[in-house]
Amino acid sequence: MQIGMIGLGRMGANMSRRLALGNIRIVAFDMSDAARTSMSGVSGVATVDSLGALISALDAPRIVWMMLPAGDVSQATLDQLSGLLAPGDLVIDGGNAWYKDSMRHAEALHAHDIAFVDAGVSGGIWGLANGYALMVGGDAKSIERATPLFRVLAPGPDQGWHHCGPAGSGHFVKMIHNGIEYGMMQSYAEGLSLLRGKTEFAIDIAAVAEMWRHGSVVRSWLLDLTADALKSGGALDSIKPFVADSGEGRWTAIEAIEQGIPAPVMSLALMMRFASQGSDEYGAKLLALMRAGFGGHAVKHVEPESPK
Amino acid sequence: MQIGMIGLGRMGANMSRRLALGNIRIVAFDMSDAARTSMSGVSGVATVDSLGALISALDAPRIVWMMLPAGDVSQATLDQLSGLLAPGDLVIDGGNAWYKDSMRHAEALHAHDIAFVDAGVSGGIWGLANGYALMVGGDAKSIERATPLFRVLAPGPDQGWHHCGPAGSGHFVKMIHNGIEYGMMQSYAEGLSLLRGKTEFAIDIAAVAEMWRHGSVVRSWLLDLTADALKSGGALDSIKPFVADSGEGRWTAIEAIEQGIPAPVMSLALMMRFASQGSDEYGAKLLALMRAGFGGHAVKHVEPESPK
Repeated sequence: MQIGMIGLGRMGANMSRRLALGNIRIVAFDMSDAARTSMSGVSGVATVDSLGALISALDAPRIVWMMLPAGDVSQATLDQLSGLLAPGDLVIDGGNAWYKDSMRHAEALHAHDIAFVDAGVSGGIWGLANGYALMVGGDAKSIERATPLFRVLAPGPDQGWHHCGPAGSGHFVKMIHNGIEYGMMQSYAEGLSLLRGKTEFAIDIAAVAEMWRHGSVVRSWLLDLTADALKSGGALDSIKPFVADSGEGRWTAIEAIEQGIPAPVMSLALMMRFASQGSDEYGAKLLALMRAGFGGHAVKHVEPESPK
Repeated sequence: MQIGMIGLGRMGANMSRRLALGNIRIVAFDMSDAARTSMSGVSGVATVDSLGALISALDAPRIVWMMLPAGDVSQATLDQLSGLLAPGDLVIDGGNAWYKDSMRHAEALHAHDIAFVDAGVSGGIWGLANGYALMVGGDAKSIERATPLFRVLAPGPDQGWHHCGPAGSGHFVKMIHNGIEYGMMQSYAEGLSLLRGKTEFAIDIAAVAEMWRHGSVVRSWLLDLTADALKSGGALDSIKPFVADSGEGRWTAIEAIEQGIPAPVMSLALMMRFASQGSDEYGAKLLALMRAGFGGHAVKHVEPESPK
């Protein structure tokens, strides 16, 4: 079996490696010379330098797996693909796309008789060794065609991948997965902050995180990662208290609003990320100003810059 | 080695069994005849029918492990113990006590030259087989005396137990552990609710929960339990949407306020439990009334009870 891989970033490169180890031959394209060069010498993976070359190198009916940033890059590539591919071909989008975009993409490609599967992929940099959790959406026939790929990429042939429903449902389930992740991470962060705040107990936070991995109710893979990271003393010293957010957290909060179903913890975990990004500062200044206004409470002033 | 166990509820009974399997002889007391009878035939565990008999049956210096409901029951037992025990004895409180109570208990017993260790115990009904995570607080000498017990109770002799700091710190770390648990549970519950709410995708929630266990970022022991429970169809049918809360969630929220460190997700998870208990209903009625008042918006009325 042979497929095309578009995108050789952190995810696409390692997924290509795992597929090749599972005897799936890969023809891969990435815009970046460096990304393509990084695959040289990987057995079973050939690289090409254009989308056109990728399509030419594959026998029809083709399977093309996209592993690209969601949004404009993915959209532009899909637009090109719909002109290059032939009826009967199958596109799998493994990026972190919004499920409503995926539903739209499925429909647009369907008009050209090109099949579409959306695959939510979890596992990050650990996927190459451990396998990737795959949440896939699409019609039964397309899923069946792609099943050999899922069986190789997943942690086990019949484990860690699931056909969730029609096109869009794979990215939908992945979106919710990430929303849950936001809440879990925030919960750990708050708890460990309170451990640290209790200075009179001088708690060894790294040791507690390690201990919780064994037999406690809060043991999890996220805790494993956290405990491992905290083992190297000063792991946090050089890290700014700024937490980025990607689409899924925002989309999950919007989904809750659209469904009219409360998801306060997932939404609040997202808002706390916004706050960490500094977007709470204007509000905090205003609050300080109001307190000064109605109660004469002192405000803290920005330090004047020292002369050079 | 021999110790006294006070309290043969779900936790105390299984911990006695695990200790006995580890060659720690147990003399156990519980007020309930049934609880005592349940231990008959358990090798290495003898039961007695009073606190006095328990103390008499142990050679000094004694170790007594309390596994009782926190609050009044524990307090009353400690009051009795301080009269019955002798200088040099050691009391370990394994209940879910508030750490400030434990600090107070340590001091009170110290006045009688009785040592005190607080042990936060996690693992629930799975602890007998898998071991209990133990977060212990107390002075180094007392911890050393009790170490053979921790090594047997924990998942491994050097794994899953930790000396967190002075008396109180064990229950403090356990409290935070449970606060984190509240946030994690709420996060999963919200996410799965949104999966269910997306009716057009007809997502098999049990299958997704099972799939996430393998290779996903949200895999955890809580997810394992959830996935297993959802496997039996209709698992939720007979369950009321009422979530009880025990002390630790409340204490964690109070701790955040006392420290002045934000723990919004853990606090909100607690508030959502309150809401599930019906304590949001008065507020919801008020809001409906206000909307009617300022906007003429329709309110829903309680159905009149049908005549019998």
